[in-house]
Amino acid sequence: MQDPDAAGLYTLVISCPDRPGLVAEVSGCVAHHGGTLAESHNHTDHQHSWFFMRNVIGGAPEFERQAFCDEFERIAQTNAMEWSITESTQKERVVILASHASHCLADLLYRWKSGDLPCDIPCVVSNHENLRSMVEWHGIPFHYVPVPKTGKEEAFANIEGIIDRHNADTVVLARFMQIMPPNLCTKYASRLINIHHSFLPSFIGANPYQKAYERGVKLIGATCHYVTTDLDEGPIIEQDVVRVDHSKNKNDLVRLGRDVESSVLSRGLRYHLEKRVLVHGNKTVVFN
Amino acid sequence: MQDPDAAGLYTLVISCPDRPGLVAEVSGCVAHHGGTLAESHNHTDHQHSWFFMRNVIGGAPEFERQAFCDEFERIAQTNAMEWSITESTQKERVVILASHASHCLADLLYRWKSGDLPCDIPCVVSNHENLRSMVEWHGIPFHYVPVPKTGKEEAFANIEGIIDRHNADTVVLARFMQIMPPNLCTKYASRLINIHHSFLPSFIGANPYQKAYERGVKLIGATCHYVTTDLDEGPIIEQDVVRVDHSKNKNDLVRLGRDVESSVLSRGLRYHLEKRVLVHGNKTVVFN
Amino acid sequence: MQDPDAAGLYTLVISCPDRPGLVAEVSGCVAHHGGTLAESHNHTDHQHSWFFMRNVIGGAPEFERQAFCDEFERIAQTNAMEWSITESTQKERVVILASHASHCLADLLYRWKSGDLPCDIPCVVSNHENLRSMVEWHGIPFHYVPVPKTGKEEAFANIEGIIDRHNADTVVLARFMQIMPPNLCTKYASRLINIHHSFLPSFIGANPYQKAYERGVKLIGATCHYVTTDLDEGPIIEQDVVRVDHSKNKNDLVRLGRDVESSVLSRGLRYHLEKRVLVHGNKTVVFN
Amino acid sequence: MQDPDAAGLYTLVISCPDRPGLVAEVSGCVAHHGGTLAESHNHTDHQHSWFFMRNVIGGAPEFERQAFCDEFERIAQTNAMEWSITESTQKERVVILASHASHCLADLLYRWKSGDLPCDIPCVVSNHENLRSMVEWHGIPFHYVPVPKTGKEEAFANIEGIIDRHNADTVVLARFMQIMPPNLCTKYASRLINIHHSFLPSFIGANPYQKAYERGVKLIGATCHYVTTDLDEGPIIEQDVVRVDHSKNKNDLVRLGRDVESSVLSRGLRYHLEKRVLVHGNKTVVFN
Repeated sequence: MQDPDAAGLYTLVISCPDRPGLVAEVSGCVAHHGGTLAESHNHTDHQHSWFFMRNVIGGAPEFERQAFCDEFERIAQTNAMEWSITESTQKERVVILASHASHCLADLLYRWKSGDLPCDIPCVVSNHENLRSMVEWHGIPFHYVPVPKTGKEEAFANIEGIIDRHNADTVVLARFMQIMPPNLCTKYASRLINIHHSFLPSFIGANPYQKAYERGVKLIGATCHYVTTDLDEGPIIEQDVVRVDHSKNKNDLVRLGRDVESSVLSRGLRYHLEKRVLVHGNKTVVFN
Repeated sequence: MQDPDAAGLYTLVISCPDRPGLVAEVSGCVAHHGGTLAESHNHTDHQHSWFFMRNVIGGAPEFERQAFCDEFERIAQTNAMEWSITESTQKERVVILASHASHCLADLLYRWKSGDLPCDIPCVVSNHENLRSMVEWHGIPFHYVPVPKTGKEEAFANIEGIIDRHNADTVVLARFMQIMPPNLCTKYASRLINIHHSFLPSFIGANPYQKAYERGVKLIGATCHYVTTDLDEGPIIEQDVVRVDHSKNKNDLVRLGRDVESSVLSRGLRYHLEKRVLVHGNKTVVFN
Repeated sequence: MQDPDAAGLYTLVISCPDRPGLVAEVSGCVAHHGGTLAESHNHTDHQHSWFFMRNVIGGAPEFERQAFCDEFERIAQTNAMEWSITESTQKERVVILASHASHCLADLLYRWKSGDLPCDIPCVVSNHENLRSMVEWHGIPFHYVPVPKTGKEEAFANIEGIIDRHNADTVVLARFMQIMPPNLCTKYASRLINIHHSFLPSFIGANPYQKAYERGVKLIGATCHYVTTDLDEGPIIEQDVVRVDHSKNKNDLVRLGRDVESSVLSRGLRYHLEKRVLVHGNKTVVFN
Repeated sequence: MQDPDAAGLYTLVISCPDRPGLVAEVSGCVAHHGGTLAESHNHTDHQHSWFFMRNVIGGAPEFERQAFCDEFERIAQTNAMEWSITESTQKERVVILASHASHCLADLLYRWKSGDLPCDIPCVVSNHENLRSMVEWHGIPFHYVPVPKTGKEEAFANIEGIIDRHNADTVVLARFMQIMPPNLCTKYASRLINIHHSFLPSFIGANPYQKAYERGVKLIGATCHYVTTDLDEGPIIEQDVVRVDHSKNKNDLVRLGRDVESSVLSRGLRYHLEKRVLVHGNKTVVFN
């Protein structure tokens, strides 16, 4: 994780076809402009011959972003890089979509309020009213958008409008329990994060805890993933499990599942916000 | 686990429809015959109204097995119990079926040799020759039974004969990699144990580590279960997972999977041998 | 865990010297009065020859508590039992003591509010004002009691008065960071619960995360225990760890530590509230 | 882990005072000589301003080791680097010291024989005879060196001679249970590996499982560390824990401890053999 003493100013993230000399070229360009590497991770997927890199650049006041970017753009074009550079202190704007269940939302709001989650939360959208008081106590606007079976299209257009008006960088489905329409999955590709209340690819779909109980599993889990148009099949960011046994009934599994869902979602979101997650195809590289 | 200082002589295992007073009736009968309860577990499945109990009975020399059994048989009949009583020092006879991979077999043999696994191993059967030396060094007979694609029926008849001649109580598939014919699944119901090289119900079938690698999962696991005619769907005895990340290639996943397979199988077998596993329908109660 | 469908009315907890027939005698008495055992756990510590039992008794409307207790008192006296019987629906009154750090308190309040923690919280006491708003939003009275270095005696007398006025059954130190005076440790023996921000017995005392960082450990943890006059040495209720590595600085360890502290404390408190924790000497038996 | 498809030829490991541009300088030198980076990790300890790097270099046939080393030596001297470059296929020679307990030794020998542990094992030394047959079945010479209380100095001189004659790169104490004399700790600094049968720094010294049992802990663990003259205080390579409860007696703790000891030792040794462990002061950086 980032060292607060280490003057990390910018986070540079790169993904491109692999070829020799990429680490040297990138780090050379950083050094040439007076930047230091407070953190530097890279990975080569040898199967797909693809290169991934994440650098936290320090070095104030010598390092000048604009001059660096001008030169780096040439390196990027030569190597067909997808890349981004962001100020480490610049917080992403995260809109959270929730439904009736409170556990993931409460966990995210607590972490945000205590300064533990580096983002802004411009608003929370929900198709139920029950969480309004909790959200508003945190000083965050709450938007109630019912999603009736016969008016889903209009509801999601409404939600999309809210997300856009708040300039969301990332959208989090904190147990939203609604299938996102394909156009939103595409529009927010790799920045729409879901927590699946199961250990994917097990127990896909509804009522996973009931299914897990009936199957007599000894572990239950949760999966945090990016949403794609292929339901429950998007790139996995983080997973975890908790041990259960025969003495736990379905309600116990639900309760234990809530804890693992909350912690997996908050970890996955943290990795995303710190630009630690690089997506390629249907897989992620997570530099943590 | 059983206390060596606690003079546990017999293990009494019971499964029956639930009704009030069962614990009192069973423990009263034990006490009436001078038995002590070195260990006693019970569980009621309230959904199916089913009762499970396991008692480790001590109390030598007062406790007389025959007199106890005579009286207990009446209780059992009244309550429609399935039950068994075994001497705690009497070791089950476990025939192990293996294929080419050595890790689960080596682990079981080591634990057996070091006195850590309370069973006898009258022989190992394999459809490959490569593990003969390791098995024979342990002083255990090794039977080579090829299982050709066009002669499976004969091969399995051969294997069944070996299992029967050795009076096996339990059969363990230590990465045997062959689908057991339905008649053997039925014949050895609840005493035929498999280790599935995956975290069931994920990645059912062949090449689970390849599938896990392609899916980019963050955890891989293994499942120990009783074999039924419904492939990979038998009652689960034990499961575990190990954390992986993008830096692990398919070979790493296989290597890490070997460790979790070995440990899950040996734990599951231990529970079975100590009569800690009670099966009801497609689920287990594991008193550990 | 308790089955909501299983009509558990009373929780009966027993601790006494071991002798043959105890399970039979206790369960016989329950059955004789028309009670059913929704759950029943027992354990014998063979080293100390001590017996522990916990029963969740159902069976309404036949089971009559008073008649049962009258008969059971005779059994208890004969066997030198410590015992208690409580209504399963009767919630304990838990007073929480906190200091400046919010994570454990926020976690407990959230679980309480969402109905996940079976207790009442009559008030929160803190030696800082900063958590007042969070506590009061939950509808719980907040008492500010400064604990100055030169006025500790008076402060703790004040706190003791508050605890007593609220008829607390249990007191939780949710990162209270003050050493409890011996008289309170004794007065609230086995009902004063602390979360130690370390993996006891490692790193006893102050600044454990700094020590863990300097030592380069690969795991950090937390311990929930009953408070005794012997600092940090009381009976352990629950422990857990989280994996760390060289890339985590001291602040990361503190952050990760907060999560494991919160979850270990809430688990430990749940076990306590459900009467799953039996103390004998300096050890616990936890029937979960 | 290293990718077998990725033609990693050399492993380059670097440790030096931090300054800007180190990643660029090192990776530039590799690229300049036609090397590719199959894997590349680095870490800066900002507290001590120290830089660590590990590169797996591919790029045959262009990459020439000698030419690279000639140039790199200049970089190393300028930056006060400690560094090494080794052929990735060149196996270290590991001498194992064991005592009476077999579990760690058996696990290491199995992994070595199955090709899972990239090293040669020229011999095993023990102060007991009981493990001779197991070692010799693996085709490895076994040296019996008794270590009597009154002749320790001579015994360790004997052991040192054996280690030296076999040109050991690394020495592993697989539950050797003898305190190494200071001169050997110094001579084999950062290449003498121990498994401590406890979760350091808890329960230092003898009988840790007895102590853990008496303390009633809910987790037991093991620590793999480099041996220094400061007993049990050397740099930690790897740790893990396993959950226990009141039902486990001391023998159970010993049995469960054996498993966690074996797996922690083999993981720690693997990291060491793959040059993933860099020591600085009393801490390690483990690039895995």
